Amino acid sequence: MEGFDILNLFIVLLSAWGAGALIKRIGYPAILGELLVGVIIGPSLLGLVESSSTLVIISEAGVILLMAYIGMEINFKDLGKASWAGLLAAIGGFIVPFGLGYYAVTQFGGTHMAGLFVGIAVGVTSLATKSRILVDLNLLDTRIAYVLMAGALISDTLALIIFAGLSSFIDAGSVDMTEISLIGGKIILFFAFTTFLGIYFLPKLGKWMANRKIDNRTTYFTLLLLIVFGLSELAELVGLHGILGAFMAGLFIKEGVFHEKITKDITRVFHDVSVGFMAPIFFVTAGFHVTLDVFQTDLELLLVILGVAFIGKILGTVLFYLPSGNGWREGLAVGTGMNGRGAVEIVIAGIGLQKGIISQEIFSILVFMAILTTLSVPVLLTWTTNWLKKRNELVKQFSRKGHIILGANPLALLLGKHLSETNKVVFVDANKGLCENASNLGFECIHGNILEEATLSEASAKDFKTFIALTRNNEINLLSSQLANDVFFIPEKFIVISPNTSNGEKGGINLLSTASASTLFSSKVDIQPWIQKVQDSTFKEIETINNKKISTREWVKLQSSKHNNLLPLVIIDNTGTKRPFRYNDYIEANEKIISIE
Amino acid sequence: MEGFDILNLFIVLLSAWGAGALIKRIGYPAILGELLVGVIIGPSLLGLVESSSTLVIISEAGVILLMAYIGMEINFKDLGKASWAGLLAAIGGFIVPFGLGYYAVTQFGGTHMAGLFVGIAVGVTSLATKSRILVDLNLLDTRIAYVLMAGALISDTLALIIFAGLSSFIDAGSVDMTEISLIGGKIILFFAFTTFLGIYFLPKLGKWMANRKIDNRTTYFTLLLLIVFGLSELAELVGLHGILGAFMAGLFIKEGVFHEKITKDITRVFHDVSVGFMAPIFFVTAGFHVTLDVFQTDLELLLVILGVAFIGKILGTVLFYLPSGNGWREGLAVGTGMNGRGAVEIVIAGIGLQKGIISQEIFSILVFMAILTTLSVPVLLTWTTNWLKKRNELVKQFSRKGHIILGANPLALLLGKHLSETNKVVFVDANKGLCENASNLGFECIHGNILEEATLSEASAKDFKTFIALTRNNEINLLSSQLANDVFFIPEKFIVISPNTSNGEKGGINLLSTASASTLFSSKVDIQPWIQKVQDSTFKEIETINNKKISTREWVKLQSSKHNNLLPLVIIDNTGTKRPFRYNDYIEANEKIISIE
Repeated sequence: MEGFDILNLFIVLLSAWGAGALIKRIGYPAILGELLVGVIIGPSLLGLVESSSTLVIISEAGVILLMAYIGMEINFKDLGKASWAGLLAAIGGFIVPFGLGYYAVTQFGGTHMAGLFVGIAVGVTSLATKSRILVDLNLLDTRIAYVLMAGALISDTLALIIFAGLSSFIDAGSVDMTEISLIGGKIILFFAFTTFLGIYFLPKLGKWMANRKIDNRTTYFTLLLLIVFGLSELAELVGLHGILGAFMAGLFIKEGVFHEKITKDITRVFHDVSVGFMAPIFFVTAGFHVTLDVFQTDLELLLVILGVAFIGKILGTVLFYLPSGNGWREGLAVGTGMNGRGAVEIVIAGIGLQKGIISQEIFSILVFMAILTTLSVPVLLTWTTNWLKKRNELVKQFSRKGHIILGANPLALLLGKHLSETNKVVFVDANKGLCENASNLGFECIHGNILEEATLSEASAKDFKTFIALTRNNEINLLSSQLANDVFFIPEKFIVISPNTSNGEKGGINLLSTASASTLFSSKVDIQPWIQKVQDSTFKEIETINNKKISTREWVKLQSSKHNNLLPLVIIDNTGTKRPFRYNDYIEANEKIISIE
Repeated sequence: MEGFDILNLFIVLLSAWGAGALIKRIGYPAILGELLVGVIIGPSLLGLVESSSTLVIISEAGVILLMAYIGMEINFKDLGKASWAGLLAAIGGFIVPFGLGYYAVTQFGGTHMAGLFVGIAVGVTSLATKSRILVDLNLLDTRIAYVLMAGALISDTLALIIFAGLSSFIDAGSVDMTEISLIGGKIILFFAFTTFLGIYFLPKLGKWMANRKIDNRTTYFTLLLLIVFGLSELAELVGLHGILGAFMAGLFIKEGVFHEKITKDITRVFHDVSVGFMAPIFFVTAGFHVTLDVFQTDLELLLVILGVAFIGKILGTVLFYLPSGNGWREGLAVGTGMNGRGAVEIVIAGIGLQKGIISQEIFSILVFMAILTTLSVPVLLTWTTNWLKKRNELVKQFSRKGHIILGANPLALLLGKHLSETNKVVFVDANKGLCENASNLGFECIHGNILEEATLSEASAKDFKTFIALTRNNEINLLSSQLANDVFFIPEKFIVISPNTSNGEKGGINLLSTASASTLFSSKVDIQPWIQKVQDSTFKEIETINNKKISTREWVKLQSSKHNNLLPLVIIDNTGTKRPFRYNDYIEANEKIISIE
C-alpha cells in the first residue's frame, strides 16, 4: 500500500487550476485546459509527473462524485419540458455519430466492443460548455438555447443508458442466452431498486429527518455520500459500472426530497469537491495516457474519427431536426452548438481504456477529438447564429415576455402602470396590504415570500423576460434577483440599490455581477422619498425627447448637472413600447423618457 | 497501484456515520463513535474490513484537510483576547501531563522519543467537545466557558508547536550540533516563509482577486486547497510533518484575506469534506490499529497512562489556575472540562505509530485514553459545576449584559425604554431616519446593515447578553439572530416572527432552531399594527400582577381566552429588573407583566 502522495497531487492540482483558469479566460471550459496540461506535463511530453496510487484513487473518487453531481443538476421537470425539437436534435445528434463511429472502428479492424465505445464517445454532448457560450453569444433568450439545453440533457441521458446496457456485457465476454437474461434481470432489478429508493424511500427519509429537526448540513452531506457510494457499489455488483450508480443517486437527490436549502448547499459542495478538486485530477491524468504517436501511426483513423465526430454530429442533428419545422439552418446552428464533447466522453473513454476495450491509441484519438470539438463550438456557433441573424431567422423564445416586479409599493405600481400598457406585468410582495392595493388597481399580485422558489413559481417566473426588484432592502433585491437568474433563467434583471446601507459600496456591487443584474434608474438611488412622493401624489410626470443616441448614464449626469432632481422611470421607443430606465442601456435618438419630479 | 476500493470506503463511511450519529445523540462528539466502531469492525474484533490504499490515502488526505480546518477555526483575535486565567489553565493542563507522560513511558523502558510523543498526546485538549457540552450544561455565559475555550485553543497551539520542534528530529535520529542548527534553521525559514505568505502575500492576492471581480466560489476552494497542500508539502520538505503546514495554511485563511462570504462558505466546505467525509475514515481506520491484547500484556502501563492523563491534566490545571485567584474549585471544573482528548491527539498518535516511534500497544493505549477521557468530560464537568452552583460560586461572565435591539421602530423604542431602566440598550437599524429618532430619545443607535458582521461589531455585540430582532422581515430577523449566535455567541436571542409570510410556517420555525432563538411576545405576531399604534400614541400600557408560576405561553392563552387583545412587552421581577416577554419563559408568582393594548 502506497501512502498519500502529496507532492504529485499538488503539482497536478496546480496545473489543472492554472490551465483551467487560463482557458476559461478565453471562453472555453476548464476541462479543455486540464486535458491539454495533462498531455503536456505527462509522460508523452515533459514527463514531469507520473501516475501514483494517490492520483488514481483521488481521480476515480472524483469521477464518481462528478457523475453524482451531473445527475443532481439534471432536473426531471426540465427533461419533461424538453421540447419536441430538443428531443429530435438529441436523438439525431447521438444516433448518427454513434452508428458512424461504430462502423469506422470496426472497418479499421477494431472489435465490436471498441466500436460501441467509440460510438458512444462520439455521440455524447457536453453539458458543461453550454450556458457560458450562450451568455457570451447573447443567445440565452433564443429558441436555439432551449433546444441546445434540452438536447444536451437528453443526449447525455441516452448515452448513459446505452453505456449501462453495454458495460454489463464487458466482463461477461461471449455470452449465451441464459447469461444474457441473467444479466438483463440483474440490471432491471438494479434500476427497479434505485427507482424505488429514489421515488419512495428517499422522500420518506427526508421527511423523517425534517420532522426530527435534523438540520446539520454535514450530516446530510455524509448521508448523500453514502447514497452515492452505496448505489455506485451496487451498480458494480450487478455488473454495471459504478458511475451509473452514482449518476442515478444524483438524479434522485432533488428538491422536495430534502429541505430546499440543504439540497442546494450540498449540491454546491459536491460541485466544489468534484469540479474544484477531484475531477480535475482525473482529467489531467487522462492526459497522461495520451500518446502523441497517433499522429504518425494512426493518422488515418484519427482523421476518420474526427470526421465522424464533426460531420456525424452536425449532419445527424440537421437531418433529425427537419421534422421540427424550424428549418435546416437552425438545425445547423443546433448541431454546431451540440458538437462539444466533455466530461462524460472522457469518463467513458477512460473506462474503455482501463478495461482494455480500447487501445491507448484510440483513447488518445478520443481525447484529441474532445479537445477539437470543444474548441470548435464557439467558432462554429458564432458563424451559424450570425448567419441566422443576418437572414433574420434567429427566433426568440416567444414564451418569455413581460415583467415581474418585486415590491408593490406606490412607486413600483406607477412603473408597472407604464409598463403594462405594452407588456404583461405581475407584482410580488410579502405584504398583504400592498398586494391588495395592486389588485385593486387591476394588477395580478402574488402574495408571498420572494426568497422562496415557490413564490416565483406561482408567479410563473419562467415565462417572463424581465425581473425588477424594487424594494427598499438591497439584500432582498440582490438575493431575489439571483434566484430569478439561477432558477428561472430570467434574462433581464434590474434592481434598485439604495446607497444608504453600509453594504452598498462593498458587497452590493460585487453581488450585482453574481446576480448578473444591472441597477434600475441608472444609479444608486434611495427610493424611499420617491415612494412617499408617489403615495402623497406630490409628484409630476415629465416627458422629454432625446435628440441623439446617449447612454442612460450620460443622460442622468446631464440632468443632475442641470440641477434637475428627476427619477427617470421608463423609456418609450419609436413603436411606443415602454421599457424600464436602467443602467447600461442606450437611449436612441427620438426616444422619449418619462421621469417623475 | 491499487484502484479505488469503493466497497470498503462505503462500509467504513457508513459505520462512521452510524456510530457518530448514535454517540452524538447521547451528547458525545462523533470522533468517539468513530474510534469505537473502528475497533469493533477492524481486525482486533470482528475483522469485517481491512485497510486498503483507498482508505489510507483518503484518510491521510482527510487529516491534512482536518488540520487546515482546525487552523481556519482558530482566530488570532480570540487567542489575543484569551484571559490570563485561560492561559494559566492551558499551560498547567499541558505541561504537567506532558512531563508525567514522558516520565512514565521512559520508566517503562520506552525511548525518549516515545516518551515525548505520549507526553504530547496526554497534554493536548480536545476542542471538539467543548461548545456542545457547554450548551447542554447551560454554561455558555459563565466564566468557566471562557476559560475553557481559550484554554483548549492555547493548549492545542502549544502542543502543535512542540510537535513541530519534535517531528523535525524524528527522521534525523542521533544528531550533532551542526545538524541541529541546520534543522533549526530550516524550521525558522519555514515559519518565516509561511508567516510572510500569510500576512503579506495572501491579503495582496485576495485584494487582487477581489479587484478582478473573481467571485467563483470553486476557484477559491481550489486555490485554498493548493495553499494547504503546498504548505503541507513544504513542511515535509524541511523535515516537519505535513499536518503542520496544513495547520499554518488554515491559520492564515481568515476573514480580511478573502471576501467574508467566500471565506465562510469555503470554511464550511472544508468542514464538510474533512469532518463529513475524509477524517472519519481516518478515525475509524485508527481503530483498526488498536489491539485489545494490551488489557492483558500491558495493563500496568495502560493504567499508568490513564492515571497520568486524568490526574496530570486535572491537577495540573488546578495548580496553575491558583494564581488567577478564581479559586481551586473553579480550577477543578476547568480541569475536568479540559480533560477530553480528540482529533489532534489521535492524529499525533497515528503519526507516531506510522513512523515507528510508538508501538502498536502504546498506540492502542492512547486510543483508549482518548475514549475514556472524552467520556469523562460531561460526567465530571456536571459534578464540578453543580458543586460550584450549590456553593454559589459559579461566576457568570460579567462582561455580557444588556440588550441589542435590531430595528428602531416605535414599538422597539418602547420596549427599549422599559429595558433601559435596568440594563444597557443599543439599537441597530439600516434606516437613518429611525436611527436618528432613537438617538433623539437618548439611545445609542448604530446605523448600518445588520447582516454585515461589521455592524454588529460596531455595536460591540460580543459584550451583550441578549439580542432582540424586532423588524417586520422574518428573514432578516432570523439571519441576524444566526449571526448573533454564530459569530458573537450572544447567549439569548429573541426574535419576532410575523405570521403573514408564506415562510412563517415552514422554513421559519425550522430556522429558529438553527439560530437557537426563541420568539418574542410568546408567539407569532404581526407587529405592524402595534408599531402603528405606538407611533400614533393610541395605545395604553397595562400592568398586571401574576399570582402563581405560569409559562408565558399559558399566560398568552389565558389572555386571548378573555378576548383581551394585548401585546405583552416585558416582565418585571421582584427586584424591579425588566426582561422581554418571550416564548419558553416562566412568569414567577408576584412578577408583573407590562402589556400594551
